Amino acid sequence: MKIAILPGDGIGTEIVEQAVNVLNALGEKFELETAPVGGAGYAAHGHPLPDGTLKLAKEADAILFGAVGDWQYDSLERSLRPEQAILGLRKHLGLFANLRPAILYPELANASTLKPEVVSGLDILIIRELTGDVYFGQPRGVRTAPDGAFKGEREGFDTMRYAEPEIRRIAHVAFQAAQKRSKRLTSVDKANVLETFQFWRDIVTEVHQEYPDVELDHMYIDNAAMQLVRAPKKFDVIVTGNMFGDILSDQAAMLTGSIGMLPSASLDANNKGLYEPSHGSAPDIAGKNIANPLATILSAAMMLRFSLNKAEQADRIDNAVKKVLAQGLRTADIYEAGTTKVGTSEMGAAVVKAL
Amino acid sequence: MKIAILPGDGIGTEIVEQAVNVLNALGEKFELETAPVGGAGYAAHGHPLPDGTLKLAKEADAILFGAVGDWQYDSLERSLRPEQAILGLRKHLGLFANLRPAILYPELANASTLKPEVVSGLDILIIRELTGDVYFGQPRGVRTAPDGAFKGEREGFDTMRYAEPEIRRIAHVAFQAAQKRSKRLTSVDKANVLETFQFWRDIVTEVHQEYPDVELDHMYIDNAAMQLVRAPKKFDVIVTGNMFGDILSDQAAMLTGSIGMLPSASLDANNKGLYEPSHGSAPDIAGKNIANPLATILSAAMMLRFSLNKAEQADRIDNAVKKVLAQGLRTADIYEAGTTKVGTSEMGAAVVKAL
Ligand SMILES: CC(C)[C@H](C(=O)O)[C@@H](O)C(=O)O
Ligand SMILES: CC(C)[C@H](C(=O)O)[C@@H](O)C(=O)O
Repeated sequence: MKIAILPGDGIGTEIVEQAVNVLNALGEKFELETAPVGGAGYAAHGHPLPDGTLKLAKEADAILFGAVGDWQYDSLERSLRPEQAILGLRKHLGLFANLRPAILYPELANASTLKPEVVSGLDILIIRELTGDVYFGQPRGVRTAPDGAFKGEREGFDTMRYAEPEIRRIAHVAFQAAQKRSKRLTSVDKANVLETFQFWRDIVTEVHQEYPDVELDHMYIDNAAMQLVRAPKKFDVIVTGNMFGDILSDQAAMLTGSIGMLPSASLDANNKGLYEPSHGSAPDIAGKNIANPLATILSAAMMLRFSLNKAEQADRIDNAVKKVLAQGLRTADIYEAGTTKVGTSEMGAAVVKAL
Repeated sequence: MKIAILPGDGIGTEIVEQAVNVLNALGEKFELETAPVGGAGYAAHGHPLPDGTLKLAKEADAILFGAVGDWQYDSLERSLRPEQAILGLRKHLGLFANLRPAILYPELANASTLKPEVVSGLDILIIRELTGDVYFGQPRGVRTAPDGAFKGEREGFDTMRYAEPEIRRIAHVAFQAAQKRSKRLTSVDKANVLETFQFWRDIVTEVHQEYPDVELDHMYIDNAAMQLVRAPKKFDVIVTGNMFGDILSDQAAMLTGSIGMLPSASLDANNKGLYEPSHGSAPDIAGKNIANPLATILSAAMMLRFSLNKAEQADRIDNAVKKVLAQGLRTADIYEAGTTKVGTSEMGAAVVKAL
């Protein structure tokens, strides 16, 4: 089995290194191949997603991704900026289903800015559509307004759109995920304002007929953003579009107070996937051996489970992470008095040891 | 001075009644005229925004609005549903600047689901553009996809667009609001993905040159949703588009735990405005005399301040509200042990008395 290793920028290299150590310690025969992506891709080959990197990602069975983005690339024209790498990988590989768990580890309950009674035991799964919506819809650009109240003025514009098969396939992923959990699914939209999301609601409702054992409810995005603050534990599985999912999944992750712990999977129709931590490249702390590698290590576990059919090895990693937390080891982002502060590499080594 | 009173649906009638009582108690000569809107508009005249209501809103100096929406209207076709009334009023009256304060009253600090140290003293002003963006952009609808990977399939679509003058005018409102507060402004966009919001960022940056005394920073919407959870007090004034503003302003309101306290103003280019509570019509508690009228009463105060040039009377109302809170009076939504639970009309009467 071939795994593409794309560390990227900022803390990406350090955290992926630890996840690779964990993978290597499992005693399985993985072929790991590394390639530059994001700012590193631009630095090496003049493009955030170099041809060789895309080719590797395509031929691999799964992709372990670090993070992209660094200040030095901020002034590049948009098509060359680091985030184009992740957008390009999603689109080229058809990674339409983004699974982002927001879980509060009991040991880290204090890290949340929310009151313990509101978040203790939090365990939400957000399923975000990842290759459609206003993220990719054509046409888009800057033009002279062709009509409307500002006809003749310069305007920026984008197209929000979702086709029926796009909505169906993500709905199936969501209903099936809900079946494996509490059998409750919340579809988040803005059907009261947007044609795209009235259509979304209609199609999700149709797909629901195939999953009569799942309880479906629909919620507007503004209300969902409120309810995530008010009573997050009322949610179990949430499915939504690319744009709303971007916002909600980050908000939900932050509810736990420990985004450094949260993995994610982006899957295609055959469960091939890209796995990455939910956090970003944090260039301000890069190279200092203080970043938390656990989200990336847990992403590797998700990879074993979803793409490589190695559920047992995934469990081993998940349990090893629980063990190091129980031992009181903490990187700076989740440190509190009474625990032991460790660096990136120490944390990685502790997980390897706990396997 | 003529004020259009549009109570709407659900708790709208009850809460607006209390605000009207407060206005009448000020000893000013206001001409108040009431008209049906939302579901009530549909019930009376077959349309959520009847011609007579729109005419009244146009000729009035200001509009006091309750809330719209009730289950019985949910199955109507979209163009007849209650929320079309508020969208129509915004568009027809050119109410492009929505000001939504998110303030945590010291007396209500416990109502928040966030830890006291994270939210105590919270005082954010969110400025949401209200007549543009994907809310109103044409074309939109359901069609056969003309191109792309799903060409030939049915799809829902909308157009996100912002013209330069639209961005300029809301930016001016925001910079001027920031000048009156801490001189810090955060513009929230998604410039890394959307052409519309790269354009937004460029124009806001240009307008900034006219306000060198204001510190401007740009933040992506996903990050803003996270930072509002992590460290909301770092924000002062936020400006953003219609869609992102819908989400962020509700999230910010909920941080306070007492959305029943939060007013809002929607202004046109001449400071004529529509004033409404930040919460909805809550049909489940309608007619029970338990809804909190304070958000509507505080909206009336905003109306006096922004549209009717009666800052002193606005202060009187604000102070009266503070006084009843200090007296320990609470409606059910903000009740806690040790305070006195009162109904909608008692709360309204207490504010009148405290004037
Ligand atoms: C970097 C950016 C383009 C990306 C997105 O908006 O999808 C990121 O925020 C994410 O959620 O992975
Ligand atoms: C009712 C709805 C159309 C409206 C909006 O999305 O603008 C509401 O959520 C609001 O924020 O006033």
